[in-house]
Amino acid sequence: MASDYSSTLDDLNPKVLKCAYAIRGEIVTHAQILQQDLTENPGSHPFNEILYCNIGNPHSLGQKPITFFREVLALCDHPLLLDRSETKALFSADSIERAIQILDQIPCRATGAYSHSQGIKGLRDKIASGIEARDGFPADPNDIFLTDGASPAVHMMMQLLIGSENDGILCPIPQYPLYSASITLHGGTHISYYLDEETGWALEISELENQLKTARSRGVNVKALVVINPGNPTGRVLAEANQREIVEFCRKEGLVLLADEVYQENVYAPDKQFYSFKKISRSMGFGEKDISLVSFHSASKGYYGECGKRGGYMEFTGFSPEIREQIYKLASVNLCSNISGQILASLIMSPPKVGDESYESFSAEKDAILSSLARRAKILEDAFNSLEGVTCYKAEGALYSFPRINLPDKAIKAAEEAKTAPDAFYAWRLLNATGIVVVSGSGFGQVHNITARREDTSYCISFYTIP
Amino acid sequence: MASDYSSTLDDLNPKVLKCAYAIRGEIVTHAQILQQDLTENPGSHPFNEILYCNIGNPHSLGQKPITFFREVLALCDHPLLLDRSETKALFSADSIERAIQILDQIPCRATGAYSHSQGIKGLRDKIASGIEARDGFPADPNDIFLTDGASPAVHMMMQLLIGSENDGILCPIPQYPLYSASITLHGGTHISYYLDEETGWALEISELENQLKTARSRGVNVKALVVINPGNPTGRVLAEANQREIVEFCRKEGLVLLADEVYQENVYAPDKQFYSFKKISRSMGFGEKDISLVSFHSASKGYYGECGKRGGYMEFTGFSPEIREQIYKLASVNLCSNISGQILASLIMSPPKVGDESYESFSAEKDAILSSLARRAKILEDAFNSLEGVTCYKAEGALYSFPRINLPDKAIKAAEEAKTAPDAFYAWRLLNATGIVVVSGSGFGQVHNITARREDTSYCISFYTIP
Repeated sequence: MASDYSSTLDDLNPKVLKCAYAIRGEIVTHAQILQQDLTENPGSHPFNEILYCNIGNPHSLGQKPITFFREVLALCDHPLLLDRSETKALFSADSIERAIQILDQIPCRATGAYSHSQGIKGLRDKIASGIEARDGFPADPNDIFLTDGASPAVHMMMQLLIGSENDGILCPIPQYPLYSASITLHGGTHISYYLDEETGWALEISELENQLKTARSRGVNVKALVVINPGNPTGRVLAEANQREIVEFCRKEGLVLLADEVYQENVYAPDKQFYSFKKISRSMGFGEKDISLVSFHSASKGYYGECGKRGGYMEFTGFSPEIREQIYKLASVNLCSNISGQILASLIMSPPKVGDESYESFSAEKDAILSSLARRAKILEDAFNSLEGVTCYKAEGALYSFPRINLPDKAIKAAEEAKTAPDAFYAWRLLNATGIVVVSGSGFGQVHNITARREDTSYCISFYTIP
Repeated sequence: MASDYSSTLDDLNPKVLKCAYAIRGEIVTHAQILQQDLTENPGSHPFNEILYCNIGNPHSLGQKPITFFREVLALCDHPLLLDRSETKALFSADSIERAIQILDQIPCRATGAYSHSQGIKGLRDKIASGIEARDGFPADPNDIFLTDGASPAVHMMMQLLIGSENDGILCPIPQYPLYSASITLHGGTHISYYLDEETGWALEISELENQLKTARSRGVNVKALVVINPGNPTGRVLAEANQREIVEFCRKEGLVLLADEVYQENVYAPDKQFYSFKKISRSMGFGEKDISLVSFHSASKGYYGECGKRGGYMEFTGFSPEIREQIYKLASVNLCSNISGQILASLIMSPPKVGDESYESFSAEKDAILSSLARRAKILEDAFNSLEGVTCYKAEGALYSFPRINLPDKAIKAAEEAKTAPDAFYAWRLLNATGIVVVSGSGFGQVHNITARREDTSYCISFYTIP
């Protein structure tokens, strides 16, 4: 390959070639070209800016960071500030106190050193306390693995569980395409289970049972079930009773439950509440030896939306010491996650409390963001539902709308002529006409919907586009 | 597995089980236990602290961060500081100017947003300029992929190149064990080539040719050659003429040259100089279409030693657009590397210049660290060579010494009885007697040395242990 620059792709890993990731696929590359064109030739398109609604990336659309979090990060980045009197005028008292507390937990106060492979112990203690406060059940800092956002944690679990293409992972459709991409990259089999659009994207146990049975009858060794709650891209927040059924299903069938809980702070429906799968399983009386459960969390979503910091963690429970040793080894090969991200992950699980100097301003910032997100979710939902041929279920949580659009026959035919899926065709036309970047539903696997009617299409749109 | 907590490892990915990573292996876990023991029972061991010489982690051993870099990072973390007059008293003028420059290059000035999958364009521009200034040959920002340290970049390349166990990668012995771990995790074949200890760990082309020929005769599809320069753990800095031979070898044999150049700033021998493989190949007249070359760099080493920030990049040259598209996709699946690490990677390639306010203090900090490293390298070398039965080649660069220790027959026998490799046995005894953590040479593959005499052993020791 090296000396033959013009050679084809035959010499590469076929799993890489097979992998797809719509969130940052061709349409985003096309949008970047349009953006450059707008800079070089203003007025050359019927819009003046590109709105990236392809991905939940709040700060890129103007959401401001939480001041307290950034104060602590800046102080930890440059601890010499703590020795200067001017610092008191620039930083809140509790951010200074918190930074000192964090630095004291780091050997040599060295934020520039590799940490323990699972992350700094003192930060894991804070996260475990935060989980305990959230769930009302014990959490062990030794179960916490700090990671560069949730994505590397998902990859680590897939790498651990998938040994060959005979190993299967049950994943929702529509899904966040990281899961299908990761399963493909690790050479496993993606077993789709379908969320039911007609009932607001509900997760039906009978569907899980059917897909599991079919996969097993084909000889697939099904290892784990992925559940995204609140749902991405559906916005569905699971009901507690439904979560209990899911836990019981995994326990009974011996499946690892991989719980994507990165949108746990993003719940807008007043009648819904987030419950972690750990809380649910513990409240059912299931402990370490009953169910293997991994919860993924991230600093990229919630009210903080700190995508660029790459902070996150997974809580890894219900595995034998031998298996834990293997995941520790995988974490060690990558040395450790970035320390700023580690600090941020601990902060989102231990934000300012009543009585702290920052508490009021922190709460005001947090509430403003969350109520704005809720308001925008509602605006989008109403707008979509007022359009002819468009329906959209209520986004109870997360950061996306996932409307269904009934395309006219002519559009379907034009898409066929362009050799494109109808929804991808629509998304391209939308971008070229308005500068709005969305991901077509087929990118989330929605084209494989069991009820798939070719005239249906969906897209994901972030709430941040509405001022 | 899930419901059977006590189940064995049979259900996991066999590649994960096979993977080894000595740098953070059992001896480090044992050291952590001793450390806890020292805290809980002071005086319980013949030492009062653990010295971690198993890994190049300067800040954990007291090296201070470069002030200018940390100033810029803190300002970018908390840009509101730029609006306050007090900031001028706390930060250098050029760090303020640089932070503003960086923020202006980020869409929405949002350090909390996901960036372009390859990293922020303006930062890649800076890095490309830094490479041009270093090499005297053009560098393209579109060839730069910013990564969370060098490790994820190495994994990405292995993932791209290895499709099956029939695909081989030529790697040095002794080597940094990330390479063997990554090849194993991706299911490829590790083709060892041996560095020659007798000539100060030289890289002989005849050895490369022999190993390549043998591998090919076994039917292995050899894809790439890994070269670590300056050497980890050997400390050898390659001579320019040797580098030319290596480039010619890769070009002729159609191998991708994977150049680990993370220690490029760590050269201590006055008669040696670092040349990038890109500079060498371009100076030989080889361009994009002649050789596929990937250079890995990191913010974790050099005089900065910012391991915890997880900043780094790879320069990816000489691949067809189709192959570049695949590596872009792999980068996209992980969204982007952390923005603080991205900023730091750009700073190490564009440090303060003559005339900048920080220049003098920056230079003083940099020179003090580098001369201290050089001094400590020499102290270690001399100390080892003054010991009976110990020899150690000059560490011309990098951060490690790799001495050979001739163990007495009784020690070999005791190791055999303990069912341990002699060098691992020695390392454990050293830890238990002194609190010093080293990695035994077998962890670097050295046990497979073609001249292996069982009484020989080696270990890696960081320079930072000597005050």
